[in-house]
Amino acid sequence: MTSKPLAGRRNLFMDLVHEAAGGNRLALSRLLTLIENQDERGLSTLDTLYSRTGNAHVVGITGPSGSGKSTLVNRLALDLADRMGKKTAIIAVDPTSPFSGGALLGDRVRMRDLAERPEIFIRSMATRGALGGLARATGEAALAMDAAGFEVILIETVGAGQSEVEIARLAHTTVVIEAPGLGDDIQAAKAGILEIADILAVNKSDKPNSAITANALKAMLEIGEELRKTFEENDDHWKVPLLQVSALNGEGIVDLSNEIARHHGWLKDNGVWESRSRERSADLVERLLKERLFDAWQKRIEAKDTEEVIAKVNKREMSPRQAVELLLRSSKN
Amino acid sequence: MTSKPLAGRRNLFMDLVHEAAGGNRLALSRLLTLIENQDERGLSTLDTLYSRTGNAHVVGITGPSGSGKSTLVNRLALDLADRMGKKTAIIAVDPTSPFSGGALLGDRVRMRDLAERPEIFIRSMATRGALGGLARATGEAALAMDAAGFEVILIETVGAGQSEVEIARLAHTTVVIEAPGLGDDIQAAKAGILEIADILAVNKSDKPNSAITANALKAMLEIGEELRKTFEENDDHWKVPLLQVSALNGEGIVDLSNEIARHHGWLKDNGVWESRSRERSADLVERLLKERLFDAWQKRIEAKDTEEVIAKVNKREMSPRQAVELLLRSSKN
Repeated sequence: MTSKPLAGRRNLFMDLVHEAAGGNRLALSRLLTLIENQDERGLSTLDTLYSRTGNAHVVGITGPSGSGKSTLVNRLALDLADRMGKKTAIIAVDPTSPFSGGALLGDRVRMRDLAERPEIFIRSMATRGALGGLARATGEAALAMDAAGFEVILIETVGAGQSEVEIARLAHTTVVIEAPGLGDDIQAAKAGILEIADILAVNKSDKPNSAITANALKAMLEIGEELRKTFEENDDHWKVPLLQVSALNGEGIVDLSNEIARHHGWLKDNGVWESRSRERSADLVERLLKERLFDAWQKRIEAKDTEEVIAKVNKREMSPRQAVELLLRSSKN
Repeated sequence: MTSKPLAGRRNLFMDLVHEAAGGNRLALSRLLTLIENQDERGLSTLDTLYSRTGNAHVVGITGPSGSGKSTLVNRLALDLADRMGKKTAIIAVDPTSPFSGGALLGDRVRMRDLAERPEIFIRSMATRGALGGLARATGEAALAMDAAGFEVILIETVGAGQSEVEIARLAHTTVVIEAPGLGDDIQAAKAGILEIADILAVNKSDKPNSAITANALKAMLEIGEELRKTFEENDDHWKVPLLQVSALNGEGIVDLSNEIARHHGWLKDNGVWESRSRERSADLVERLLKERLFDAWQKRIEAKDTEEVIAKVNKREMSPRQAVELLLRSSKN
């Protein structure tokens, strides 16, 4: 297939839209590139496709880099596709991995494993722009995949901070991956990553020290359940399962897919799917709105001017309010 | 003393400013009311006072309602003032307590205990307006107290969500209070409240089940330290101390003041005071800026129009981007 230029070819472009929605992978790839670049044609296509969204199960998979997350996500996608018959898409968002920043080589190596599978689609997200922008682009890519008929969308992020929590808010189900022997374990815990988990998986169950990490996490979960039991009458909340898996030899992958499917059922049966969907709509609109307002402002000012003003505030030469007044005035010129 | 009208009396108002900075409590109270109401004169006074700020140790004290937090904060203020000789101010921010929303009776009962103390000042913050607004007003009140010469500012919040995390970001030191027999314990843990703690205190050590809560929290802290020890070379991070205290009989209050002072020393000695100060300046400016931009926008639109548009997005009748375009267009009329 050859890549046709899109500029000025509106009719051909609308064909692309229909092809993407109909399952054409190249069409979907091109559409995602347009969305990622915030190209007006990509974004207006998304507007057209939006009415077809809302069916996919969006699963966030987060964990420290070096936890073998990518291999695990590949294995999981294969199991979801082969055993459970689900059309599965992967979005890899990882500022520290070779999959991000448009690293084509990494993408190709990884895609080779999944290339023969028409029911699996993989896409990495570049980290250009602000973190807020990354969360937005990821959300928009997930919508495009949803409209294109993918039933499960795995969003893979490195668990290290605010951006991942932001991205997790896009997901119906959040899987937190831990692995033995990583300094990030405690970082992940500190960043409140454990607090967002619907499912907890310790990867590298093949390694001897994996049990130590699993036991520490199990103890944390049990303490939480004990405290909850003491105070809560009803017992209908979701109990976070802890799994030991090995992306290397495939151990526990089936259990992980099953737990993801079980959480999907629980969300639907308890009205949580619907309430999360409402929250997400409000969240998307408010976030996009704030971003548009702040972006519009930032276009009217130099970054170094902002930094200078903040330094003055820190030296108590100017109050924060005076700084904001000054910045708002400067941006009007 | 009589309360003089301020409108149009600029010179008298400037006197008030000097009096507040000089330690006149009534002047400070009136200044805080002006700030809280976002009165232009109060805010411009704050600009004038800003150069005198940056000395106070701001301590956030957060915990579930019913944990006896207010009594504990009162006891702590007395110890800081009497034993350590510190001029201490309290800001009570608690949407669920009688101290908030301008509940004068609650305030008066509480202030009676501390009324004889010229070195202690107490102020409650009303919850009018948005949560962001509450964090801003609290930050501004703390600045006014700092300028007025208070050496320790205790900001008391109920630990239940985003607003408290926001307010904790204002503090140099965050003390998390837990208590036995409260359903909120696990809520506090879920909300990531434990993650923000510099000092952890279990109140009601006089109650028999206090040890259960303390042991559960101790186990969590130890697991964290164990994991950290495995991966970190150096050992110079702050180790969160766990205290058992009783606001009722005063047990452990001295230890709590001492730990707060020790954390202050640690922040100063390790350059963390300075780096947190820089972060806070940038944070204050960016937050105020975003708020100003969003506020300016909200003034141009009806809340029910926004809700209607969000409902349409949820029903997939309109994309988020179309919704934002529509909202931005509507607000221009």
